Amino acid sequence: MQNKPLILITNDDSIHAKGLRKLIKLMRKYGDVAVISSEQVMSGMSHAVTIKTPLMPRLIHEETGFREFLTNGTPVDNVKLGKNALLERKPDLVVSGINHGSNAAINIVYSGTMAAAMEAAIDGIPSIGFSLDDYDLEADFSHVDPFVETITEKVLRDGLPEGVCLNVNIPKKSHVPVKGIKVVRQAKARWVEAFDQRVDPFGRTYYWIGGNFVNGDPRPDTDEKALADNYVAVVPVQLDFTATQLLKNLEF
Amino acid sequence: MQNKPLILITNDDSIHAKGLRKLIKLMRKYGDVAVISSEQVMSGMSHAVTIKTPLMPRLIHEETGFREFLTNGTPVDNVKLGKNALLERKPDLVVSGINHGSNAAINIVYSGTMAAAMEAAIDGIPSIGFSLDDYDLEADFSHVDPFVETITEKVLRDGLPEGVCLNVNIPKKSHVPVKGIKVVRQAKARWVEAFDQRVDPFGRTYYWIGGNFVNGDPRPDTDEKALADNYVAVVPVQLDFTATQLLKNLEF
Repeated sequence: MQNKPLILITNDDSIHAKGLRKLIKLMRKYGDVAVISSEQVMSGMSHAVTIKTPLMPRLIHEETGFREFLTNGTPVDNVKLGKNALLERKPDLVVSGINHGSNAAINIVYSGTMAAAMEAAIDGIPSIGFSLDDYDLEADFSHVDPFVETITEKVLRDGLPEGVCLNVNIPKKSHVPVKGIKVVRQAKARWVEAFDQRVDPFGRTYYWIGGNFVNGDPRPDTDEKALADNYVAVVPVQLDFTATQLLKNLEF
Repeated sequence: MQNKPLILITNDDSIHAKGLRKLIKLMRKYGDVAVISSEQVMSGMSHAVTIKTPLMPRLIHEETGFREFLTNGTPVDNVKLGKNALLERKPDLVVSGINHGSNAAINIVYSGTMAAAMEAAIDGIPSIGFSLDDYDLEADFSHVDPFVETITEKVLRDGLPEGVCLNVNIPKKSHVPVKGIKVVRQAKARWVEAFDQRVDPFGRTYYWIGGNFVNGDPRPDTDEKALADNYVAVVPVQLDFTATQLLKNLEF
């Protein structure tokens, strides 16, 4: 690490998101900040990468210790662009968010915010995805500072094991103060979809995705339980999909 | 299950892919087949879902025991559309592929083919993603039949544990016969990107993603090792990202 850490910030709610602005403000005291974010909202883009078309990033703002690049890519593209093309060296830390909406439980699979953090982890860069349990575009982020700071400072100081990043979900602002931070596991919860079937002005049927989030996981140490109890939920995340418990029992 | 299983087939190489046609041919002997695939190539789309725009599936072919729907969605959209909107009941099996190109090791994270299989697993539907270790659009699939059949028949007969699907990678066709099937773990391998920097006809810089696949995993029981040894690699896959080994050691 140089004197000052180089921190890459991205998100999936576009460069205009309130949560991104909050994260920029909090990170600038820790080092030189480069923002690489998308002109369009990239929610639900998961780990998508742009293969078929070129990427055209544009430097839209520059001052001492701070740069902002606007791109036509996905959150994962933005991390790849940062470490391979736009930045003069590999960042010391990648932070993604603060997402408008929870990425706890199965939401991590669909999330562009968390995919960006995981992409950094694949490349050995310590990374954190931050999300607020509030989908509102005008969500209140005024209570998040001490939690974002505590977690960021620890990761800057101690690093993270190789291939691991953090999925941090912060309770929605309420009249009750957040109780603290809990290290927990990903809850087994899922979305039960209900497509809204409609007819377009030309008489063609179309569908719009909708659904309800259902948590049936009774375990006491999950991210959903921590959020419900008004704690910040931190899940250490790795990208090994192997169901290791089956390696010995499955035969063909 | 009814008398005949209902099998949903999708992929990420579009409805025109040779690998999809192969899979359709192999699956029709096991039950009623519904294909839901995309008009555009969806490689690298990972677990992306379409939230901002509507989905407009179209029934383009129908005969006894066989239907094909064309969509403007991602592979995960296609599975969601199938189980929630287009099919009369939940499928008994979802198969995805056969992908043109390996989805072993870290490729699973970027793959639309595997995301479709995982989406089915989230919903408790037994599912298998099949991939051939050959990116060629005209790849030779003539050797895959016995392996696809053995694995499919076992899953139809025995099911899979809840939340688990299979990531099946088949060696490229060569003069040496494939040696058999191995149940293995996801290798720790990754892509080292090199963006190709170019200038467009209007003088603007753009980047096109490229890179090399690097496998530094020396373990003898990985998918990459099995493929290298000319075995079909089967990884049982689950969607729990928790780095459980860290739950006890991480504190804030």
